[in-house]
Amino acid sequence: MVAPLRVGIAGLGTVGVEVVRLIERQGRVLTERTGRPVKVVAVTARSKAKKRGIDLSGITWAKDALALASDPEVDCLVELMGGAGDPALSAIDTALKAGKSVVTANKALIAKHGLKLAKAAEKHGGALNFEAAVCAAIPVIKTLREGLAGTGISRVYGILNGTCNYILTRMEQEGLSFDECLKDAQRLGYAEADPSFDIHGHDTAQKLAILASLAFGTQVAEKSIYVEGISSIAPEDLKAAAELGYRVKLLGVAVRTAKGIEQRVHPTMVPKSSSIAQVMGVTNAVTIDGEGIPPITLVGPGAGGAATASAVVADIADVARGIRAAPFGRPVDKLRATEKAPMERHEGGYYIRLMARDHAGTAATIATRLAEQKISIESIVQRHPNGSEPPKTAGKSAPVPVILITYATHEDAVHRALQAVQRDKVISGKPQVIRIEKN
Amino acid sequence: MVAPLRVGIAGLGTVGVEVVRLIERQGRVLTERTGRPVKVVAVTARSKAKKRGIDLSGITWAKDALALASDPEVDCLVELMGGAGDPALSAIDTALKAGKSVVTANKALIAKHGLKLAKAAEKHGGALNFEAAVCAAIPVIKTLREGLAGTGISRVYGILNGTCNYILTRMEQEGLSFDECLKDAQRLGYAEADPSFDIHGHDTAQKLAILASLAFGTQVAEKSIYVEGISSIAPEDLKAAAELGYRVKLLGVAVRTAKGIEQRVHPTMVPKSSSIAQVMGVTNAVTIDGEGIPPITLVGPGAGGAATASAVVADIADVARGIRAAPFGRPVDKLRATEKAPMERHEGGYYIRLMARDHAGTAATIATRLAEQKISIESIVQRHPNGSEPPKTAGKSAPVPVILITYATHEDAVHRALQAVQRDKVISGKPQVIRIEKN
Repeated sequence: MVAPLRVGIAGLGTVGVEVVRLIERQGRVLTERTGRPVKVVAVTARSKAKKRGIDLSGITWAKDALALASDPEVDCLVELMGGAGDPALSAIDTALKAGKSVVTANKALIAKHGLKLAKAAEKHGGALNFEAAVCAAIPVIKTLREGLAGTGISRVYGILNGTCNYILTRMEQEGLSFDECLKDAQRLGYAEADPSFDIHGHDTAQKLAILASLAFGTQVAEKSIYVEGISSIAPEDLKAAAELGYRVKLLGVAVRTAKGIEQRVHPTMVPKSSSIAQVMGVTNAVTIDGEGIPPITLVGPGAGGAATASAVVADIADVARGIRAAPFGRPVDKLRATEKAPMERHEGGYYIRLMARDHAGTAATIATRLAEQKISIESIVQRHPNGSEPPKTAGKSAPVPVILITYATHEDAVHRALQAVQRDKVISGKPQVIRIEKN
Repeated sequence: MVAPLRVGIAGLGTVGVEVVRLIERQGRVLTERTGRPVKVVAVTARSKAKKRGIDLSGITWAKDALALASDPEVDCLVELMGGAGDPALSAIDTALKAGKSVVTANKALIAKHGLKLAKAAEKHGGALNFEAAVCAAIPVIKTLREGLAGTGISRVYGILNGTCNYILTRMEQEGLSFDECLKDAQRLGYAEADPSFDIHGHDTAQKLAILASLAFGTQVAEKSIYVEGISSIAPEDLKAAAELGYRVKLLGVAVRTAKGIEQRVHPTMVPKSSSIAQVMGVTNAVTIDGEGIPPITLVGPGAGGAATASAVVADIADVARGIRAAPFGRPVDKLRATEKAPMERHEGGYYIRLMARDHAGTAATIATRLAEQKISIESIVQRHPNGSEPPKTAGKSAPVPVILITYATHEDAVHRALQAVQRDKVISGKPQVIRIEKN
């Protein structure tokens, strides 16, 4: 009989409890698949007394995560406490420096301290696996690190945050406002009481930093990412997008350009026919463009106790099997630093929604200003309420929306054109601009 | 410097040439990712003289595949000759018995001889990797073998044959007949001159046998699979499916039932909202239902030189990295034999299209016959051409299609009901029956 892999679990919340259950339930299969038994030998959590509905008899209760990490009876530390710093950080560091392997679902910690920890894993020979940190059960990290190891990657993009996709889906399908949908998401437990980390794109950015590192060999660095959230998106935008053959999604995009790796998070118009556009509700998805091959898209649950536990146990199985891949796909000293993407140089198509003050001549003015910046217009639509002529208010037209789709251009050209339009005083309010991502 | 992994490639067709190119182009990245250089040291192919547009200087030309497999300078044999028997079979067997690792894209060979070869790999310590054999660049084998190693799988199903999906997509989108679309597929190179292996479902069955083995621990056995092709599908079926909220796809389905693992290949109605229904043209996709988690779907190119080479080089990278997973996820002697799925006991919903001879009373007769078999009807539609009353022909109604969707029932009940309806002489021709797969 081969010696079992002895697992210590720090954190017994929803995910931790599911991991204990899954290892118990899948015991025989795990042994067959990995060639050795996988056994939870020790755990720790904030409260020992709490009822969790799992049998912990015969399992050591460690006094804290550090004690678990130092326990010579533990081969593999599974960190499920969360938090971007201590105690998770020092527990993982301690385990790695003792030559143990570590499995974690802690996206924030990997985004902030992943490189340092990967260096410790490299030096001491342990694994540092974090499949669950990005898109839970969807094996996107394994796919980038191993499944496409032989393929040059030109772009990775995805719906990495279920909260935002849930809100955008509801807004589109029911014509509701952002605030209404956010409230529903909170009521249903899809959004936090303080939703800003999700809706302002930071959660997506941390996940993107990890994916970009695996895809392109960049250092994980959230600060290199341009980030824009979804709170400015209006139901009118989703309606106009649908009519023009697009959907609006909050995407994390990492793309190889002539100037380097561009990493950005922002609401994005994607063609309705693309795989990513089909992804609705809290579901996550990642599309990978390999050089010379059609896109590969992975779709599935990006959160939830069972889905996260599924990825954690797969990572544990890799440890049991003896797989030791570089955590970010390459040795840490081969990872390159990246600059924050200069979005003014971003190239792409744009959706622009303006409120035209006056009907007559406004479209021509806008078109002229865009032409001055050498921006070609794919379509321009003046939307009259109910298809009628714009209503007259006090002898003057009420503002009517003008929707433009441009061909690929530079973002600074768009800004210059819109500034000129604003100086012309033919529009009211701030123009809405959404970048288009082609598949 | 770590010793390079020395690769020998047997077969220099489209895929082989792409593999040589990819290893050359990705050389530095492969070294970083795997920790050692990957080097093509020897090749063989039918014609040495053929122009291939790749530089083979410095690479040994072996006299045949067997010589390549026995070459002590080769650590890893890459078999890209194809064919379900010799010379591919004996070359792989020879390489494995010499303790070498083998990478192959040969689905037919793995489906027929995979178990024997996996046994040799186990015994002699080499890897036997065949990611490219199913869905080319989509990492579905790695996902089942490793990415979901910790999750009980309840069902795997997918669009595994691009030719059939191309034909069904064209039929649906353009209302064309099966024969017209097949001819187009042949003209465009998506279908073989003899298309029977694809359109009758055998290609899908071989791939399904491999996926089922990885998911459920069954022995790879094409003969355990119920197989039905797409040639009986009519444009009317696709139109009716669309109106009822479904699409028709040729699916390979392996599912855990109370009676064992059911493996089947047949045209299937899938809800339009499912990820698999969105997959159009030659694209492939696989959906995996893990116990307790929402489905995971992988979508991408299932064929093509570059996409196949991508998977082959990823497999080579795993060999270089030292990963030795059991080829079918578990030791061969743990894999269980399966019986051919007894389709008469299959449970599910059904789409039934009948040509009713006479308008008055026919629907009632059909409904009665179904009720006698305890089959509940979800919907029944009598389709009159152009929405009018059925045209009278010689004093008698011309046949009009009657479309039924049933709730879940047993297949033998459906057959008994339809036999009774035929005995009643209220329909003309053979009823069309398509199984429904719910997501």
